[in-house]
This record gives sequence, C-alpha cells and structure tokens, in this order.
Amino acid sequence: MSGMWFTEEQTANIRFGCRIRDILHSEKTDFQDLAVIDTLQWGRMLLLDNLVMTTDKDEFVYHEMISHVAMNSHPNPQKVLVIGGGDGGTIREVVKHEKVEKAVLCEIDGQVIEASKKYFPEIASVLTGHPKVEILVADGIKHVKEMKEEYDVILVDSSEPIGPGAVLFTAEFYQAVSDALKPDGIMVAQTESPFYNQELIQTVFPTINSIFPITKLYLASIPTYPSGLWSFTIGSKKYDPEQVNAEEMVDLDTKYYTPSLHKAAFALPRFVRKLTEGK
Amino acid sequence: MSGMWFTEEQTANIRFGCRIRDILHSEKTDFQDLAVIDTLQWGRMLLLDNLVMTTDKDEFVYHEMISHVAMNSHPNPQKVLVIGGGDGGTIREVVKHEKVEKAVLCEIDGQVIEASKKYFPEIASVLTGHPKVEILVADGIKHVKEMKEEYDVILVDSSEPIGPGAVLFTAEFYQAVSDALKPDGIMVAQTESPFYNQELIQTVFPTINSIFPITKLYLASIPTYPSGLWSFTIGSKKYDPEQVNAEEMVDLDTKYYTPSLHKAAFALPRFVRKLTEGK
Repeated sequence: MSGMWFTEEQTANIRFGCRIRDILHSEKTDFQDLAVIDTLQWGRMLLLDNLVMTTDKDEFVYHEMISHVAMNSHPNPQKVLVIGGGDGGTIREVVKHEKVEKAVLCEIDGQVIEASKKYFPEIASVLTGHPKVEILVADGIKHVKEMKEEYDVILVDSSEPIGPGAVLFTAEFYQAVSDALKPDGIMVAQTESPFYNQELIQTVFPTINSIFPITKLYLASIPTYPSGLWSFTIGSKKYDPEQVNAEEMVDLDTKYYTPSLHKAAFALPRFVRKLTEGK
Repeated sequence: MSGMWFTEEQTANIRFGCRIRDILHSEKTDFQDLAVIDTLQWGRMLLLDNLVMTTDKDEFVYHEMISHVAMNSHPNPQKVLVIGGGDGGTIREVVKHEKVEKAVLCEIDGQVIEASKKYFPEIASVLTGHPKVEILVADGIKHVKEMKEEYDVILVDSSEPIGPGAVLFTAEFYQAVSDALKPDGIMVAQTESPFYNQELIQTVFPTINSIFPITKLYLASIPTYPSGLWSFTIGSKKYDPEQVNAEEMVDLDTKYYTPSLHKAAFALPRFVRKLTEGK
C-alpha cells in the first residue's frame, strides 16, 4: 500500500488527508497551481492551489446540485452560462436538459479545461465537442458585463474566494450577472461551507438578496469539501425554486439529485437559516 | 500556534486531522481506549479507540437528529431508553420533550459517563442529576432482552460496529429492541456514513426492515464524522415518521433540527435510496 499522502489544509486547524497512488500532473498556470492526483479513496482528484476541486467518485453531488435546482426551477432554460467550471461537470449536467439550445462555458484558465479533458474524460465529456456547448477561455466578470438580458440561467461554478475566484463573490459581479439574465432569469453561486465559512454566507447572502427579488440558500453533502456540507445561493428574478411542481420536473439521469431532494435541500438546519437572516 | 495534531484514520485511505491545544484525559477502560482532547477547531473532543465520538461544537447535530425525529413521530413518548450514549447528549435532548416521564440511559462503559460529566458539562448536563433520568451502567443487549413492551422509544446511540458496539448492529439485537418496545413503539439506530459504510447500510437496513413494519433511513450532516454525512435508521411499529404534522410538532430549543428538516431528512440522494433498496 502506498505511503504517499495528499493533505489539504481545510482550515488553519483542520487537515484532510488522502492516500495517493500517483501524481499524474502538476503545473503552474497563468492563474494558479494545478495538479491531478490519483487517490485510493476518491479516484482521480483535481487540485487548484492545493485545494480539492473535484474527484471522480463524488463529483456527481456538486455538479448535479449546482445545476439541476436552477434548471428545474426555470420553465424554459434555453440559454445557459457557466462561469468557471472548467472541469466540464456542471455544463455536462446542463445539457441533460433538452430545452437547452446553447450552453456557454466561460473559464478563465484554459489549462483547467485541457487537464480535465485529458485526466477526467467522464467529467469533461461535453468539452471535447458537443453541438450545444460553446467554450470561452475568458474572464467571467468581463463576459457578463458585456451581456444584457442574454441568459435564462447563469451558474457560478467558482473556486474559493481567494485567487482568481475572489471577484466572483462581490456585489459588482452579482449585479452584472443580474443584468446579463433575462427578466425571468435565475443564477446560482457556490457559497462554501456553513460550518467553516459562516462569515462568507453572512456577507454574500444579503448581497445577492439586495439584487434578486427571490434569494434562497440550499445545501448538499460533498464528502471531499471542507466539513462535508456545502451551500449554494440561488438568486431568481421571477421563479421561486421551492414552488416547483415535482410532478412536472424533467426526469434526469442522476446519482444524487431527485425532485424530492430539490425541495428538501431548502429545508435548512436552524443555525444555517440564522446565517441567512444575518444572525 | 500548537504544532500538535490528532489524526483519525477515517478509512484505510482517508485521514482527518485536528490541531490540538492539549490532551486532557487518557485511559484504558474495561472496554476501550478513552481520551479527551482540546482541539482548536471543534473545542473538546471525546475519542473512543481513537475515533471521534462527539465534540463541543458540532455535538448538537448528532444528538438532536438521533432523538427528535423519533420523539416527534410518537404522539406520547412517556418512557424512553437510550442505549450507549454515555456522553449524555442524546438523553439531554430526550428530556426536552415534556411528555417524557422516564428516560433510561443504558451505557456499558461507566468511564464514558464519568469522563463526560467532568470534561463535557454541557453535553452531560442531565447526567449529574435529573428527576426523569435513570442511569444504568449495563450491557444494552442484556437490558432490552429483559424488557417486554416497556418503552415507547428506544434510541441506539452506539459507537462503531467494532469493539463493544458490534453487537448493536445484529438482527438478534434489533429483535430484542422490538420486543422491548410497546405495540406502537419506535426505535432509531445510528447507521454510519452512506459514502464510506455502504455495505453496513445494505445489511442493516433490510435487517431492521424484516422486524419493523415501517423502516426508513434519514440523514444529517456531521462535520467531524467520516464523510460529513451520517445515516440513521428508524424502525417503527405504527407511526410513519414522514407522516407527521409539522404544525403539531413540539417546538424545541434546537440548533439543527426543525419540523421542516424532520421531513426533509427523509428525502434521500438517489444513491442512498438505492442502498436501502439493496442496490
């Protein structure tokens, strides 16, 4: 058995260690350190600046939950934008919805896309050529600022609020996202752990809530992310993501998401609900 | 900043590390290694055989979720048994329900009770003297075998299915629990992580289902337990824990549990639902 370990410093006082078979790839891109390792527990793992972005074996949770909640809350999601998400997992889920006519991926770091195509063929499956998918290697905030009432759904699949992802947690960015959405558009952003990142939620939730008439937080269990519990914040101009009819939802090939879970994900633990209320 | 770390081997290939201030207590009891450490992230932490049992800062999730779901599913839970749970957190939650007349704690290892009273005064608050609480330092399986139609609710707050806790995952034990329950009784057992302990769930769920007419699995997010997602299996003779009226539920002072979350906890990710269906 291999004696090599990858260790993530999840907080200053918590470490997450995975036994590894091999380091498959390591480079310094224009934006960040990028590595691909092969772990015994979770299969291949994508690291950016030494933080776990995704793994072969639990990627389905994050990618299904960042996409299908908004996609199934919108009655006609024809044009969809994914910001970040260079591994391709989120946009792979987006194009499972037949109503989608165009899905744009806007990733700032082209090397994430290239490494994902090479080392994560199942996650990146739609990046190697899909009739509905357009790939832009570009700055997400610049892109949304150029777009007006263009998209039905925008998914903010960012990395942590440090490094190149930091700008994706600002009011300026969320306002630009709102402007780039059609008058009945919906956005979702990943908003970190309700156990370890409480201040972020207490800041970002009211910011999104000041821009979108309907703002709600929902949760999913991601074992390779710090604390295992992850939050997503949805900002919607018209459709309430909790008031969807489970009977009418698109039936999807998923491992985590179900129509019942869509609704249940908004039933927050009391301490998380308080975070969204500024307590 | 302290350079000392406690590291739990969560699986053969996964480690969870916590920076520690101090080791407060360490002993070998008749049943297991018992230690209390002071961690920077999670406060004081109780370890049995080097596995995290509970911590000051996230204990509320486990203790509220193992108790209130069953307690609020039973219209009149007067007599309640907790098997294991020597730290006292579960029985502390049980006696929040005013209908309870007697709550019995049956813990095999008296040293767990003593260490908890000393180092976890908030968790063990009702162990130092409470008019409704009776403490037995005894073998849980023996105790339930001596009881016939005695309890309204039995909560199996076991440690891992190794060491002294192993017998608490057998058909023989669950049958004895059923016999010790009144004809409308309810039991709950902690049944480990749906990510790391899939075979256990695939074995234990059908076992409980062969004994109880209503068997359901529900989930809670416990950041200091392996994978951060934990399962509980409820076996009920009469009351369906999903068919409770949220309006009629007892209003409780909680940090995690809410009546909405009670229902939502049964909305399982698709892969977890499949585990309960033997897939």
